[in-house]
Amino acid sequence: MPIDLGSGLDGGALMDGVPLIDHHCHGVVSDDLDRESFEALATESNWSAPKGTTTFDSQLGFAIRRWCAPVLDLEPHASPEAYLGQRSRLGAGNVNRLLISASRISTFLVDAGIREETLTSPEQTAGLGGGKSREIVRLERLAEQVAEQGATPSSFIADFEFALETAAKDAAGLKSIAAYRYGLDFEPAAPSEREVREAVDRWLGRQKPEAGGMRLDEPVLLRHILWAGLKLRKPIQFHVGYGDADVDLLRCNPLQLTGWLRATQESGVPMMLLHCYPYQREAGYLAQIFPHVYVDVGLAVNHTGSRSEAVIAESLELIPFHKALFSTDALGLAELYYLGAGLFRRGLARSIAQWINDGDWSRRDAERVARMIGYENAARVYGIEP
Amino acid sequence: MPIDLGSGLDGGALMDGVPLIDHHCHGVVSDDLDRESFEALATESNWSAPKGTTTFDSQLGFAIRRWCAPVLDLEPHASPEAYLGQRSRLGAGNVNRLLISASRISTFLVDAGIREETLTSPEQTAGLGGGKSREIVRLERLAEQVAEQGATPSSFIADFEFALETAAKDAAGLKSIAAYRYGLDFEPAAPSEREVREAVDRWLGRQKPEAGGMRLDEPVLLRHILWAGLKLRKPIQFHVGYGDADVDLLRCNPLQLTGWLRATQESGVPMMLLHCYPYQREAGYLAQIFPHVYVDVGLAVNHTGSRSEAVIAESLELIPFHKALFSTDALGLAELYYLGAGLFRRGLARSIAQWINDGDWSRRDAERVARMIGYENAARVYGIEP
Amino acid sequence: MPIDLGSGLDGGALMDGVPLIDHHCHGVVSDDLDRESFEALATESNWSAPKGTTTFDSQLGFAIRRWCAPVLDLEPHASPEAYLGQRSRLGAGNVNRLLISASRISTFLVDAGIREETLTSPEQTAGLGGGKSREIVRLERLAEQVAEQGATPSSFIADFEFALETAAKDAAGLKSIAAYRYGLDFEPAAPSEREVREAVDRWLGRQKPEAGGMRLDEPVLLRHILWAGLKLRKPIQFHVGYGDADVDLLRCNPLQLTGWLRATQESGVPMMLLHCYPYQREAGYLAQIFPHVYVDVGLAVNHTGSRSEAVIAESLELIPFHKALFSTDALGLAELYYLGAGLFRRGLARSIAQWINDGDWSRRDAERVARMIGYENAARVYGIEP
Repeated sequence: MPIDLGSGLDGGALMDGVPLIDHHCHGVVSDDLDRESFEALATESNWSAPKGTTTFDSQLGFAIRRWCAPVLDLEPHASPEAYLGQRSRLGAGNVNRLLISASRISTFLVDAGIREETLTSPEQTAGLGGGKSREIVRLERLAEQVAEQGATPSSFIADFEFALETAAKDAAGLKSIAAYRYGLDFEPAAPSEREVREAVDRWLGRQKPEAGGMRLDEPVLLRHILWAGLKLRKPIQFHVGYGDADVDLLRCNPLQLTGWLRATQESGVPMMLLHCYPYQREAGYLAQIFPHVYVDVGLAVNHTGSRSEAVIAESLELIPFHKALFSTDALGLAELYYLGAGLFRRGLARSIAQWINDGDWSRRDAERVARMIGYENAARVYGIEP
Repeated sequence: MPIDLGSGLDGGALMDGVPLIDHHCHGVVSDDLDRESFEALATESNWSAPKGTTTFDSQLGFAIRRWCAPVLDLEPHASPEAYLGQRSRLGAGNVNRLLISASRISTFLVDAGIREETLTSPEQTAGLGGGKSREIVRLERLAEQVAEQGATPSSFIADFEFALETAAKDAAGLKSIAAYRYGLDFEPAAPSEREVREAVDRWLGRQKPEAGGMRLDEPVLLRHILWAGLKLRKPIQFHVGYGDADVDLLRCNPLQLTGWLRATQESGVPMMLLHCYPYQREAGYLAQIFPHVYVDVGLAVNHTGSRSEAVIAESLELIPFHKALFSTDALGLAELYYLGAGLFRRGLARSIAQWINDGDWSRRDAERVARMIGYENAARVYGIEP
Repeated sequence: MPIDLGSGLDGGALMDGVPLIDHHCHGVVSDDLDRESFEALATESNWSAPKGTTTFDSQLGFAIRRWCAPVLDLEPHASPEAYLGQRSRLGAGNVNRLLISASRISTFLVDAGIREETLTSPEQTAGLGGGKSREIVRLERLAEQVAEQGATPSSFIADFEFALETAAKDAAGLKSIAAYRYGLDFEPAAPSEREVREAVDRWLGRQKPEAGGMRLDEPVLLRHILWAGLKLRKPIQFHVGYGDADVDLLRCNPLQLTGWLRATQESGVPMMLLHCYPYQREAGYLAQIFPHVYVDVGLAVNHTGSRSEAVIAESLELIPFHKALFSTDALGLAELYYLGAGLFRRGLARSIAQWINDGDWSRRDAERVARMIGYENAARVYGIEP
């Protein structure tokens, strides 16, 4: 009997009744968005599309017009103008509520350490979809805040340690964006105390903390906060692979973390490799080899749209199924929640259905794996209720 | 209603009436080819196949026997012997005319800076298919010609500048083969005047220009001619990825161009990444991030034959659709025109048809994207009529 | 007429009557295995799965339960407990015989240079399946044995040369695990005699040979034994890509062998790139460019299970069909023979059937390529009877 794959993005019978834990996401913009702002949030580029072109002409743009339009009561494939017009008529608040509710995500693990003034808070974000939220502490942002709040070279190390303990107390996990600030090819060993002190001097000396807008890109400190974070024994998320123009993608290959993963293997602290595109196969290899490594392909699912099934299937080649997770990496646009969840449901269901049809998987195992990836793995690793 | 995908390589309804601009190709051999010469042009290898084997046993070889044979009035899957026999009976001139006409390419942007004595000129090449041609100036070859024509260390810089202006006047764009001569990991910054002068001395001192056959592999000069080319504000094509045995593929990853793309982003001069295999996903990332980056997968379409649809589909994951282009990279064999165009039509049509059938794309958007990739993007970027 | 793909893993009509030469494999454990030992052999990880999880939850684990269970007279998708219970009831000897016979491999080229005390010998391994065996000499292990047997710094070079000649006399080929001991980015040139002598001093001085358990990781010696092996003019196998936790996968990209392949191209000695995942496309490129390069995707076929067809298809993009080979890389578990052969048969047959159905390949060529990859290429390169 053929597997019921449902219609649209719901994933059919295989995903039916599978709650989702989005283990890596961000807030959304609660103000109304003009076309330029909307387009800027629908690409990883830091610049506008060339004259005469539009970021709507992309897999993500097509997915928005196809799948989000009906949620806003428009015909599928509505034009960008019609879509943005309706979005504006309904107002950002309603749009956010409609799309995030429709994503049927039950728990949101929110990294609120980026554009925090302009995006909804973790509670607000989850509230828009009637779900629960937990926080993910972005290590670099926390260090910057400590500096911005007046830490001196002599107080910074202790101040950061205190701030981290406080911030992480109720948090589900930590996050590193070393990929953006240096590259994943960082020296894996913990820096010595003296190295850290010298690095603090260099960094705080270079920038005026009181001026605000500190940017942590001092390699020794990037390593120090990782080792400090490790002590808390909460999962540490890493940005891996594809991202915006700040990234040097050649230095965001998850294999560059091999030394770090060896150095931390005995700690048992879970290392969560986020996104990973186009290195999803390399990430799957690491997850098979290292017991503390977990992987998702969140961001890529949204941006590859009609091709997301292929990316999901590749990510499930070497990875043990207890190591794969779901995320949207939604940021700014509520559309990214709806599509991130929907394309994940559909892509996972289609991949698995193929393997059932090929005679490789049993229906029962298939349902079990769908639950594992949908929420059980995240619940176990982060220690949260689904 | 299912999409009509036509029969053979025509791409069916989606490609019907879509003219093609081949934005990167070369001339063909107008002499008759014996088996050894034919096989040598049907592989990127610089050596013969091992004893007892043949380059016909490859995806490209199978595609030639399957798809080109009927154009030459043979049965599909004709044997290599039958194929080459018929090729020889018809004569190279007729074969070239038959295959290039059958490719239905309307405009040919021809890089004539390689084996120029043995290949048809841009006008001749386009004429074989009843199309129009424009030239692409190969920067390295031009620099070599300037040296071969007697430039002295003191005159070279100005001589090259003059030659470039002259050559580029009516050209559609420029081309860099830095990938072949150094690697894409070249230092991105413009070299200083003094560095360039010293490099000219080194290079001209090392080789005897009057002896002909200069080979530009001086890294500083490779960068200098790129920066000189940038001033003309015409699109610059880069060989990226897969190529012949001169290439060190590890140093032809498009991500190694990240520094160059950052350095040139404000200029707005289009950077055209050619071929890109097996880094088509990495190339798509760059095209999404940088407003001035464009991508094709030309060469790989020919050489992957029955697998070319997969390569095309992967290349369309992250790339904005206004950034993807068509090329054949045909060189020497007219077969590469016919297959390059046909496999592209079929692979693009099948990929898109899949996305329509999945409910992701509308038929109207699909037709629009087919036109964009087939010719509109090239027409806009190169400023030419389709 | 649609291609008959058979049922299960037999590959249908296209693989019917195609004998298989497994050109790279190892012995199996002849003792009964408890759950922990079985799971350890069913992953490339050096550690157990995290608490509450099992390595059975992986593509390989699912494939074992699905496809090997019926060979042991269980229902498909038997639980791990049922499977291991039955395995234990039947006894390892019977299980090995059942599974290896069912793999219908005719010839086994066995690398016996790993865990030699605990695994079946080449003859025993082949005997379990009623096939023939030939040996592959692992260069590093041989060098270690020479040291363990008391070679002195002054005798080592000659002792190794003699041992190599003796060991290789009846062997089908040699194998290098430079990937595990250094990386494929080794300096390609042959070291000088003096460099080799100094390296022997360093290596033997560092470890006590009489203590046994020597480990060759001295880079100059790793190169020396390769150049020494080259003189024998037998095929040299290289571990490439994916492997256990000792590997730094970033340094196992086959493209890092480019310098070595250039240096050895004139020798004509076949270089056999093993596994290659996730770099199968890069490996295919090398096989197209260099006349002496051959490729398989053995290990990956087993571990990617239901996804192995995709990996096989990718490996056949650029590679000339006279350069592709079959292997299982089975080690320890007889399951890896049965699945390695079966998934290969099915994946190759399905890939080819797709190309026939697409109108690209003729049935006759398809059958010819299946024979080439199944055994003819290996028979020709290793000079053995199929």
